Amino acid sequence: MVRCRRGLSGRPCQFASYYQLDNLVAIMDINRLGQSDSSPLQHHVEKYQKRCEAFGWHAIIVDGHSVEELCKALSQPRPSTHCHHCQNHQGQRHPRCSNPISAAEDKLGWHAKPLPKDMAEMVMKDLQSRIMNSSKHLYPPAPTEDSPPVSLRNIRMPSAPNYKAGEKIATRKAYGIALAKLGRYNERVVALDGDTNNLTYSEIFKNEHPNRFVECYIAQQNMVSVAMGCAARERNVVFASTLASFFTRAYDQLRMAAISESNINLCGSHCGLSTVVAILSLFPLIPLALQFVLNPPLFSLPVCPGSCQQGTQCPSVSAGEEGPSVMGLEDMAMFRALPTATIFYPCDGVSTEKAVELAASTKGVCYIRTSRQDNPMIYNSNEDFHVGQAKVVYQSKDDQVTVVAAGVALHEALTAAEHLKKGGLGEAVSSAMVNESGFSLHRLAVSHVPRSGKPHELLKIYGIDRDAITLAIRKMLSSSTNAK
Amino acid sequence: MVRCRRGLSGRPCQFASYYQLDNLVAIMDINRLGQSDSSPLQHHVEKYQKRCEAFGWHAIIVDGHSVEELCKALSQPRPSTHCHHCQNHQGQRHPRCSNPISAAEDKLGWHAKPLPKDMAEMVMKDLQSRIMNSSKHLYPPAPTEDSPPVSLRNIRMPSAPNYKAGEKIATRKAYGIALAKLGRYNERVVALDGDTNNLTYSEIFKNEHPNRFVECYIAQQNMVSVAMGCAARERNVVFASTLASFFTRAYDQLRMAAISESNINLCGSHCGLSTVVAILSLFPLIPLALQFVLNPPLFSLPVCPGSCQQGTQCPSVSAGEEGPSVMGLEDMAMFRALPTATIFYPCDGVSTEKAVELAASTKGVCYIRTSRQDNPMIYNSNEDFHVGQAKVVYQSKDDQVTVVAAGVALHEALTAAEHLKKGGLGEAVSSAMVNESGFSLHRLAVSHVPRSGKPHELLKIYGIDRDAITLAIRKMLSSSTNAK
Repeated sequence: MVRCRRGLSGRPCQFASYYQLDNLVAIMDINRLGQSDSSPLQHHVEKYQKRCEAFGWHAIIVDGHSVEELCKALSQPRPSTHCHHCQNHQGQRHPRCSNPISAAEDKLGWHAKPLPKDMAEMVMKDLQSRIMNSSKHLYPPAPTEDSPPVSLRNIRMPSAPNYKAGEKIATRKAYGIALAKLGRYNERVVALDGDTNNLTYSEIFKNEHPNRFVECYIAQQNMVSVAMGCAARERNVVFASTLASFFTRAYDQLRMAAISESNINLCGSHCGLSTVVAILSLFPLIPLALQFVLNPPLFSLPVCPGSCQQGTQCPSVSAGEEGPSVMGLEDMAMFRALPTATIFYPCDGVSTEKAVELAASTKGVCYIRTSRQDNPMIYNSNEDFHVGQAKVVYQSKDDQVTVVAAGVALHEALTAAEHLKKGGLGEAVSSAMVNESGFSLHRLAVSHVPRSGKPHELLKIYGIDRDAITLAIRKMLSSSTNAK
Repeated sequence: MVRCRRGLSGRPCQFASYYQLDNLVAIMDINRLGQSDSSPLQHHVEKYQKRCEAFGWHAIIVDGHSVEELCKALSQPRPSTHCHHCQNHQGQRHPRCSNPISAAEDKLGWHAKPLPKDMAEMVMKDLQSRIMNSSKHLYPPAPTEDSPPVSLRNIRMPSAPNYKAGEKIATRKAYGIALAKLGRYNERVVALDGDTNNLTYSEIFKNEHPNRFVECYIAQQNMVSVAMGCAARERNVVFASTLASFFTRAYDQLRMAAISESNINLCGSHCGLSTVVAILSLFPLIPLALQFVLNPPLFSLPVCPGSCQQGTQCPSVSAGEEGPSVMGLEDMAMFRALPTATIFYPCDGVSTEKAVELAASTKGVCYIRTSRQDNPMIYNSNEDFHVGQAKVVYQSKDDQVTVVAAGVALHEALTAAEHLKKGGLGEAVSSAMVNESGFSLHRLAVSHVPRSGKPHELLKIYGIDRDAITLAIRKMLSSSTNAK
């Protein structure tokens, strides 16, 4: 049993009926009671039945206390639709149920509470007294092992990324290309998407491997649950994608995936306006040791603030023009708070392909953040990446300041080049600096409700454009000089 | 229009039908298309109708292009049930719809995209040509203004908290008491809960003000949406409560609330195993200036590591025994990533009551974290609290180390008293230290998948018990001495 509580109603019902999952049986225990009071529909099993049927299920009402009735219902042939059993259980007052069994039955105050020893014994005794043929043993057939577990160790890309220096690609597109490539060499790679495959570019996988692509429609909670199901018992290597902001819908499912030690890989595209910038003074190399902060693609670039070339194009803030509801601003905080989670935030085609490969072979919940706009390659195809390792992409012997950046912000930092270099991951970086000393840390980030706008307008409004960064570094250097 | 996307299906439909909201009309635009492909039910409006009806709605199918049909449907009398209109719109191929109106109709690739100027003009022209009587003006009646907006400035508790020194109470219970008290003096205070009112203690409010309590059942997303609705147009002061961990379900609604600049107050109880501890070396007072990190009840207690009294009872880790699925471990990260959000993490009855008062009068999304176990008062009733201000609860002139703690962890720190003082908020604190220098920061926190257990067992397992803290402080002090 994979535990995924709450919300598993309409969407999964619709999903199951749409895909005609005729080997799926759901058992509903209608016990009338909630945590603090009775549930709205109480014992009206007919209302439950009507709802199930409206979602295309074949719903049968049985007395959950009757083993015979249960067996009959469970052994019914299921013609292309699926069975859905509404049972009456503990607390039953429905006329079809004849035998209230326990002292806790139909009484509030027992939700999530174990029965005390004497009550438990009474219930056990009562149950045992009802077993009519106690000498009968049941031998359910063993499950068919038709496919062996996948070893995460064997999942490797067969070749290096095929990008040329100077080539431009959006990391979201590079994700689709990498996933299709991984799928080409490993038939247990499965992709899911939530009606955004033409935005996340999982459509590249879909077009190449249509029989291993599951369209989950715009129901992200259910998509994460389906991903967990696909990945269960190590049977598949699953990648599920949607916009980064949309994963906020599935936060409960994500934490339950982490708690269940599920191996699922997620990709959030259009991570947006998240160009937080950390400037680490007098600190040449950043020890990104935090377990959750991941970083094949979290780069440190020690920089020298010197003369500047202005006029270079400001790289776009991902998703700026679509407005705040689709800006993925919370995804880093969300995934970083999950145990077992690893976050990948690649900046170019090469690091994205490596991130896909690393995610596939890394245990736990892996999350890849991708951006909307085309950006040039930073790395060459032979670059070696490891989880938990930062890269220095620019340095000189006169460096006085370290700028940490990832994704789009890395390009921002590099295009501002000799002007002032920037980038970063604010919160994650400040957290990684814990247990270190002798540095000071400055962070630039979106600190208000974001609004729609052209990327360069937004960068300016929220004080994370090149001018704001330049000012911050100059201030930091001058206060450091004064302190000496 | 308050924008709350996705997931607003079964739960709100059920809520509306259960409460017989006969002044509610929902208009469904069935346009067949999703973002990447057609939606599962396409133009099968009858299937939509069946589902709506199963949830107790009165559903009418109309041709959305026909103003006449729309008016007829909207003016139908609604006897205790509510109306639900299924419309066919842009992209319509259903036989009831006669007039496809635009070049984008029933074509993929137009989701969330503005029409180019020429197409928009064509559509406008087409629409205008259909207006049969263009001289007719409509005068809808102005809305009835039956209650003035609430001014947040006037929301004050009429008296100081009524707790005695040495008295013990769980902050969750203090929340219920404070909320009922606030409601006693302000009739616009409304409380919501998600079938956990006997856990969060919002039942105290419910019992005292039953007509201002809305039971939202175990549907947290809908509860947050209902809260936004209640708070809309500044008509009510809304408090919605459930277990801290259950708010992960509603993260999308919470961020949309923030983006919509909604004034809602939330309370998450059973925040658990969250006794992260930050030890700030050589830094006497902590400037918690970060906008989101809130702290009437975020306390710093500079301590002196000296002789120790062992044997005091280790305060319970909230929710430890119920297992990881109900441990509120992600709530801080979640709310801190929201713009406009203020977090209150009180440690006793007095600070909880003050937190309720401050939350009611603070704009934006306010979040109060409460704990499960009884704890003694820390503050006396006259203590003055302000948002963004930390309190020093223990200090001496020989202090060498600052321990930051909140909630249960504050008691942990104080009971370990002369032994070693502890407490904290890890991530939030390390983030608040950004832009400060000359200190080193050490954090103790749960860094693995949490498991069920007795509170003191869990504290030991995750290395945040008094021994681990003692060790961390000793290590920090010795390395600081060596460095001199």
